[in-house]
Amino acid sequence: MVTRRRVQSIAIRFYPPSYDIRVESVPMPQITHSDDAIVRIHLSGLCGSSLHVYRGHEAVDKMRVYFSGAYHTCGHEFIGQVVKLGSSFSVHTLRLPSLYAKLKTGDKVVCPFPTSCGVCQVCRSGFTCRCIQSKLFGSPALEGVQAQYIRVPSASGTLFNLSDPDAWPLSKLKQVSDSSLLLLADILPTGIFAAIQALSHSKVLPVPAAEPWPPHGKASKNIPTFAIIGLGPVGFCATIRFKIIAVDPIESRRNKMRSIYFEISDLGVSQEIFVVQSIEEVKETVHTWTSDVGCSAVLEVVVGNNSALTLAYELVQPFGSMSSVDAHGVHPFPLTGGQLYDKNVSFDFGRCPVRSLFPMAFELLSDESSLIDRIVGFDKAVEMYATFDKGEVGKIVFNPWKET
Amino acid sequence: MVTRRRVQSIAIRFYPPSYDIRVESVPMPQITHSDDAIVRIHLSGLCGSSLHVYRGHEAVDKMRVYFSGAYHTCGHEFIGQVVKLGSSFSVHTLRLPSLYAKLKTGDKVVCPFPTSCGVCQVCRSGFTCRCIQSKLFGSPALEGVQAQYIRVPSASGTLFNLSDPDAWPLSKLKQVSDSSLLLLADILPTGIFAAIQALSHSKVLPVPAAEPWPPHGKASKNIPTFAIIGLGPVGFCATIRFKIIAVDPIESRRNKMRSIYFEISDLGVSQEIFVVQSIEEVKETVHTWTSDVGCSAVLEVVVGNNSALTLAYELVQPFGSMSSVDAHGVHPFPLTGGQLYDKNVSFDFGRCPVRSLFPMAFELLSDESSLIDRIVGFDKAVEMYATFDKGEVGKIVFNPWKET
Repeated sequence: MVTRRRVQSIAIRFYPPSYDIRVESVPMPQITHSDDAIVRIHLSGLCGSSLHVYRGHEAVDKMRVYFSGAYHTCGHEFIGQVVKLGSSFSVHTLRLPSLYAKLKTGDKVVCPFPTSCGVCQVCRSGFTCRCIQSKLFGSPALEGVQAQYIRVPSASGTLFNLSDPDAWPLSKLKQVSDSSLLLLADILPTGIFAAIQALSHSKVLPVPAAEPWPPHGKASKNIPTFAIIGLGPVGFCATIRFKIIAVDPIESRRNKMRSIYFEISDLGVSQEIFVVQSIEEVKETVHTWTSDVGCSAVLEVVVGNNSALTLAYELVQPFGSMSSVDAHGVHPFPLTGGQLYDKNVSFDFGRCPVRSLFPMAFELLSDESSLIDRIVGFDKAVEMYATFDKGEVGKIVFNPWKET
Repeated sequence: MVTRRRVQSIAIRFYPPSYDIRVESVPMPQITHSDDAIVRIHLSGLCGSSLHVYRGHEAVDKMRVYFSGAYHTCGHEFIGQVVKLGSSFSVHTLRLPSLYAKLKTGDKVVCPFPTSCGVCQVCRSGFTCRCIQSKLFGSPALEGVQAQYIRVPSASGTLFNLSDPDAWPLSKLKQVSDSSLLLLADILPTGIFAAIQALSHSKVLPVPAAEPWPPHGKASKNIPTFAIIGLGPVGFCATIRFKIIAVDPIESRRNKMRSIYFEISDLGVSQEIFVVQSIEEVKETVHTWTSDVGCSAVLEVVVGNNSALTLAYELVQPFGSMSSVDAHGVHPFPLTGGQLYDKNVSFDFGRCPVRSLFPMAFELLSDESSLIDRIVGFDKAVEMYATFDKGEVGKIVFNPWKET
């Protein structure tokens, strides 16, 4: 008698309540809805925001789900290839919404970290990460992507089809490695998001034009000063050409920022308009550069740390803008309404709508594989989570098909 | 022997810790700095934000000042006439900054509720209410304006000269009563501020144009829905022609809003795009009007009430904008960072830069004296503070020269 071996997928799994990561064989994912896709993963990233789950810091109501035994596969960044599609992809649709991808088996795809339907009012407004049907990969609601095979719900509205010549310039695609394309899944768009949230804020917008707010005349020339708190991969992606004060308590990250940024000679970046500093040094620079007024905008790109919000408040000028892309947690907000009033603070909080920002991110993408510290196999998963959690290593990428 | 009677000014004074208002004779204010002006008050308003002081809810560090006996004159809204100027006004200055007023004795003036120098970087950026030298009228730092005579520091950068034909169209000025001009001191610009903060927010701006964020194409037509929480005088001034849901728990305010708004027939406002509701009714309307997505923007114009911030959060859509002009207090902020992340909330907090918004407010000003409930003498001060505190009366204006 011949027993047919059932196809399995190897995956990195999280077991509640915290710090428990296991590499296991799981059943091959199946199409369960007509808009599903099954994707074979090429590379899968380890992101700072996964540490919220790893450390057991997720919201209390979600914790209940964990404790009831809802362990799940980790991760929300991947690049891969479509191997199977639901029935809806074989139906000819005349008028696809602009965020709707045409997909066929064999297509190379990259994917935002939450799913989006692409058709609801929220998606059509560009705010795809808050789609009314959105699910987050690597959460109790949806299995993560640190696996050999995964299921993608709402695949047409979620996946970017990198093999579609109408959608993306394939010539550029060929110049960029898979590990760089993986940055499109979260950290490059999220960094851009933190920056354009601040730059496009109506109170920051008039600064480079030397216009007072509300615009009605001319004021003295004024170069905006930005502070960036947190020099992890997202903080790096947020750097733009203004007067920038980049802050991180970890020396290795500061050194990495300096080495990469100052080597890009054609940007003409000089030490005078871009400094990388520790928390102890930064207030003095803000004092000198801005005559004690404060920074026009502060980008807060730190994982789960209320002291970063407090520092951002200290560094921002009256009527300045604070842009925060961290998921935060259940901690009480560290500022009172009175403090926010006293400095006329503007805040932009929340998750990056990666799907909408993809064209802009793709435009800005060059081969940034220097941002990635190591590509490792699943055999190193337990060790890498622990090392990354301690801030001792930068961006980690998993190849689920190869032992290290 | 002839004793010369010393000139006195009658004033409404606040005595800490709370609910203690007295009408007293105080010394005539004197010029103490070359940029000071002495102003004879025509009318002086009673503003909702004065209730923070009246109720003893001011910040703890300020309370210490109060308890040490720093009672002071109340109020921060006035219209009046310059009777004396410091020495700097007699010096010919060739290049005055745009926010700098030329003043002479006899000029009619209106004044923002905080002072501003008009020359620092913050003032030149249009953010006059956060001038580095700014002082708030009616606080321990600066005597208030519910008096017969007051001293205005930084008078050139603070006062609007209504008698200057180069600055304002005197023809329009003649059509507007003093009690309407008084609205320019705080509540009309603050209402406009709450609204344009929300309207000019980069994530709200694309909505009327049916553009997705960030702008890169066309989306379906979409009429933005605004909620206004709080229908006091400022809330009234914030109403603009969009789909508006106006909310207040006090029935008399709702009736006033309905009666004034719907009588302005040339605005063509219909019940369909403007509803006035109680807190119990509002969620159903937001559900119906926005297909459960939420309001594009919520204006929070309530004095010292954390539940208004919580309601604003409930009503706003993902990626929506919340504009709050209340001074708030030392209460902990009622939302966590996690909640702000989960809905991609944008906040604009803080005080209105009245000085910068004056031209826009003056343009929009018509004879809105219907907004004012009663003009009374100082003999009614104690009674009016108590009645206003209970929400039983609308906008009160004092005439310091006439008994009621």
